[in-house]
Amino acid sequence: MTARRVVVIGAGLVGASIGCALTRAGHLVHLEDRVASHAVVAAGRSAGTTEPAPTADVALVVVAVPPDAVASVVADSLERFPDAVVTDVASVKASVLAALDALVEEAGRYCGSHPMAGSQLSGPITADPELFTDRTWVLTPHEASLPKATEMVEWLARECGARVVLMDARDHDQAVAQVSHVPQIMSSLTAGHLREVPAEHLTLAGQGIRDVTRIAGSDPVLWRQIIGANAAAVRAELEAIRADLDALLASLDDPAAIEAFISQGRAGVRSLPGKHGTPPRDLQQVVIEIPDAPGALARLFADIEGVGVNVEDLQIEHDPARQVGFLSVMVVPELAERLTLAMLDHGWHLR
Amino acid sequence: MTARRVVVIGAGLVGASIGCALTRAGHLVHLEDRVASHAVVAAGRSAGTTEPAPTADVALVVVAVPPDAVASVVADSLERFPDAVVTDVASVKASVLAALDALVEEAGRYCGSHPMAGSQLSGPITADPELFTDRTWVLTPHEASLPKATEMVEWLARECGARVVLMDARDHDQAVAQVSHVPQIMSSLTAGHLREVPAEHLTLAGQGIRDVTRIAGSDPVLWRQIIGANAAAVRAELEAIRADLDALLASLDDPAAIEAFISQGRAGVRSLPGKHGTPPRDLQQVVIEIPDAPGALARLFADIEGVGVNVEDLQIEHDPARQVGFLSVMVVPELAERLTLAMLDHGWHLR
Repeated sequence: MTARRVVVIGAGLVGASIGCALTRAGHLVHLEDRVASHAVVAAGRSAGTTEPAPTADVALVVVAVPPDAVASVVADSLERFPDAVVTDVASVKASVLAALDALVEEAGRYCGSHPMAGSQLSGPITADPELFTDRTWVLTPHEASLPKATEMVEWLARECGARVVLMDARDHDQAVAQVSHVPQIMSSLTAGHLREVPAEHLTLAGQGIRDVTRIAGSDPVLWRQIIGANAAAVRAELEAIRADLDALLASLDDPAAIEAFISQGRAGVRSLPGKHGTPPRDLQQVVIEIPDAPGALARLFADIEGVGVNVEDLQIEHDPARQVGFLSVMVVPELAERLTLAMLDHGWHLR
Repeated sequence: MTARRVVVIGAGLVGASIGCALTRAGHLVHLEDRVASHAVVAAGRSAGTTEPAPTADVALVVVAVPPDAVASVVADSLERFPDAVVTDVASVKASVLAALDALVEEAGRYCGSHPMAGSQLSGPITADPELFTDRTWVLTPHEASLPKATEMVEWLARECGARVVLMDARDHDQAVAQVSHVPQIMSSLTAGHLREVPAEHLTLAGQGIRDVTRIAGSDPVLWRQIIGANAAAVRAELEAIRADLDALLASLDDPAAIEAFISQGRAGVRSLPGKHGTPPRDLQQVVIEIPDAPGALARLFADIEGVGVNVEDLQIEHDPARQVGFLSVMVVPELAERLTLAMLDHGWHLR
């Protein structure tokens, strides 16, 4: 293996994690960040060095800055590093290409990409060389992308342990509009409507509304940039949803139409792939009451372990008033009865 | 205490659980169900007897049948038990009153109610005398309700361990439209839109869309009845949401408007009361990687127990590709660092 020299611009979670993965693989990573301390923290997490890179020697520049700044930093990088391939990791791709068109003569050395890795945490302190392991990393080469650009970004994704998927930038943007940006907007829309709800009414809220609105707690500045960059694709999806909403409003007095609407949603949620990318499968739920006190969960999981069943999924629900919670444990149907009996045997209270 | 004779019509989860609670409190419960085996199963769960009740001796009739059947069974019960108070447990109240108006001369002995208890499970087999303990039980007396009717239903709620809240039927219906029915519809709307999404795009789905669409998996027949019965209140809320959606669509090119929209959602989700009815408080998240194998969660919780911190909330996220999950543990901020250090000490991998 030849060690390559890579510049990472933007030392947030994604940039610093790329730095960690490449450094661990034996490559030379130079970190840059508008906020110098971010690069220093990332370097302290073994993401690379803050020393400037010798320009001529750089094979790849990874632009991992906030969405709004991506195109200009990519353009700048193409100029600063005249022999390097340049990529970015923004979650919207076509808008970067469009902005780039206005900034540079030709962008053959650029190939966009989007690693599908968690973003619930941010900042270099949480950098993790495993962040991309077995994750999907979408590459979106454009018409003028040179083969060496696409190959270099593919190399990057594989060095980080990810699985490469090639998509057209517009397809990619439509896909993330559908599975990420529109769900975010629907959650925000539902939560935003609560401003009109009297506090007395909010006390009747249960678990359902909490699930639907969880991601509405996301960062407004980040989402302003993501949605702004993908406005066209988002608009098309939202207009289709508005049409569905209008159809529902027009048929709220028709029981058959309401049932068809709810059934359509149930079919939709079942079309999502199962965990670990496997096909969805039916699981059975065992609901166990847990006192809200240290140690209860540990005892409970020790008892579950004793049964030898694998927990496929779990969810905790709080009783809105009592000091207890309910743990929904999802297991394959063949094991549900064994788990149920064993839990009762151990004195747990099932629902 | 005087033992009272109560008839419960409809031996599903709610009816049978009421039977269990009253039986345990020393009262005489007679169970009826259109499906005789349901009543038999409920009786086997100590919810009461399937023997017919001596009509003159019945103090209270609890109607716990599916929403569409409630009004006619209430009307029938007022006639069958001429001295008894009659209540129901349907999740929509004004429509029952309206339907009742057409069926009976006067309904002074009727007082509607709605115990806010979990409905993720159904059927008498899961009956639980504790189902209502410390839960909110909304009473919706109407203009003609006799004081003895309201008092009797209040007695019922208290015997079941619930906290009584009195609301006007229309207020109640608006509240549940806002915090339950509309979130259900928004989840179904989001999930239903997936029918237009290519399978290749669905592979990019992450945790966010799964949370938003979880309750879209609910029972279409039950929700047809709930939404159908509350169509007026639901319509008003949905029209306000459509207006918000239209405003967003009109300003998708305005970054400040998008940011304001996402911020409004964040304020909304923060306005929901915290668990156990306490005010919301900021919690800090510690994310721990867990191998997807039996025993891992048990070891993890044993280690958390060793630290002596109380887990306020938790959520499991699956890596869509790797055989691992991430457990987000929410703790009060003062304890986050202690937990983090202890977990690293025990060799766990944190994100």
